[in-house]
Amino acid sequence: MKIAQLQSKVCIDKKDTLEQISGMINSVDIDTDIIMLPEMFCCPYDTALFEKYAESDGGNTYQLLSEIANKENKYIVAGSMPESDDGHLYNTSYVFDRNGNCIGKHRKVHLFDIDVKNGQYFKESDTLSSGNQITVFDTEFCKCGLCICYDFRFPEMGRIMALNGAKVIFVPAAFNMTTGPAHWEIMFRSQALNNQVYAVGTAPARDMSASYHSYGHSIITDPWGSVISQIDEKQGIKITEIDLEKVEQVREQLPLLKHRREEIYRK
Amino acid sequence: MKIAQLQSKVCIDKKDTLEQISGMINSVDIDTDIIMLPEMFCCPYDTALFEKYAESDGGNTYQLLSEIANKENKYIVAGSMPESDDGHLYNTSYVFDRNGNCIGKHRKVHLFDIDVKNGQYFKESDTLSSGNQITVFDTEFCKCGLCICYDFRFPEMGRIMALNGAKVIFVPAAFNMTTGPAHWEIMFRSQALNNQVYAVGTAPARDMSASYHSYGHSIITDPWGSVISQIDEKQGIKITEIDLEKVEQVREQLPLLKHRREEIYRK
Repeated sequence: MKIAQLQSKVCIDKKDTLEQISGMINSVDIDTDIIMLPEMFCCPYDTALFEKYAESDGGNTYQLLSEIANKENKYIVAGSMPESDDGHLYNTSYVFDRNGNCIGKHRKVHLFDIDVKNGQYFKESDTLSSGNQITVFDTEFCKCGLCICYDFRFPEMGRIMALNGAKVIFVPAAFNMTTGPAHWEIMFRSQALNNQVYAVGTAPARDMSASYHSYGHSIITDPWGSVISQIDEKQGIKITEIDLEKVEQVREQLPLLKHRREEIYRK
Repeated sequence: MKIAQLQSKVCIDKKDTLEQISGMINSVDIDTDIIMLPEMFCCPYDTALFEKYAESDGGNTYQLLSEIANKENKYIVAGSMPESDDGHLYNTSYVFDRNGNCIGKHRKVHLFDIDVKNGQYFKESDTLSSGNQITVFDTEFCKCGLCICYDFRFPEMGRIMALNGAKVIFVPAAFNMTTGPAHWEIMFRSQALNNQVYAVGTAPARDMSASYHSYGHSIITDPWGSVISQIDEKQGIKITEIDLEKVEQVREQLPLLKHRREEIYRK
């Protein structure tokens, strides 16, 4: 499974962002299987702007990415974008298959509300509503999990996706300059290790002129908990091939999932 | 809360081990609150030897540690030892309060069975039976969790102890030379971070003449996921004071436990 992570820049004008992304997709290797975009790839990460940039299911950006997936014959894990539905806004990720069909949709379940002393203040719940389900989708390679950024802080999320059959978990994300250096890598390493899966995190490039400074550092961790790919904070594309046999090998050698004692996990 | 971790050596003769430990306890600062011993502190870590070294509840080693706790007026988290009960063997940890009363008892729930290609082979289940409960005990400082080594690989264990009120989790452990370098630190960091607690791991000193080579590296991680204390592989005592207010501070700034969506955590 060959994955291209697009650590793209979020422009003020959505048209500019989408042109940039189309250009980046054009440049990836022809044998790439999956293209992945960052959290809020086409909207500045600012609670006050989510409504302005939001689209409904099947809107322009959705259509464009569906068409590109079909034309390029690749999966697209379309990061996330603000979705408007019935008066509510969601932080939503869509997945398109090689024919452009939407085969996965995840609304961020855990809204990011943080207030670190002398650090980050950010409250998604000021304008967003939360999703209510854990998401797994099928591909020709294996089942894959999908969640967004802060969702992956919760060990329950990775665990349930793995128990539901996911061998690769995609996490569009945008950690900041407080939590990124402290927790980005350990979150991806521990979820991959504990659930014996690959974890793929894709973040926007850092833009010091924006109000929110993304940590960047798009990453892939393997089922042994090792970082197999990580970039810096700059705009770029990283292509990585992952070996799904490693999932089986690790699960056989250190059978964590088999050794769970579900019956005693009660408060 | 001042904790003394005894990274002690396991001798063939149990009497030698207990003399060594008594001597180490004699040497700790008078204002130490809690003394902690490693997993299988008085028995070589070898499935074939667990029966020979096992004692019943209230046996000689139990009595000795209870008396020392009372005499020294300190808590003792008594690592673990093989316990025999009704024809079964368990890997069991006892906790004694300042008066020598046993206030906590945990039987290892997840037995360590591993078979890494070109690495470690070890099967606790060859001779041990498993415990069936998650353990939290009370102290004058706060509630504390207690589990043993491989138990802590499972995110459910730290999570449930934290939800049951634990602010410090004690983990007698003995990682090996395959899993230690790869997973020791990330396990303690991620459990402390995800559950916003202190995690305290105490291991036996490495003995290259023994059949099982302990990684050592007794460690303490804080609620922000940082390592605040870690030693090398050699025999020694490490005394660390932890600040329980940090638990509240981190939980207020990044309210992970509050943001859980228990109602959606279903397979």
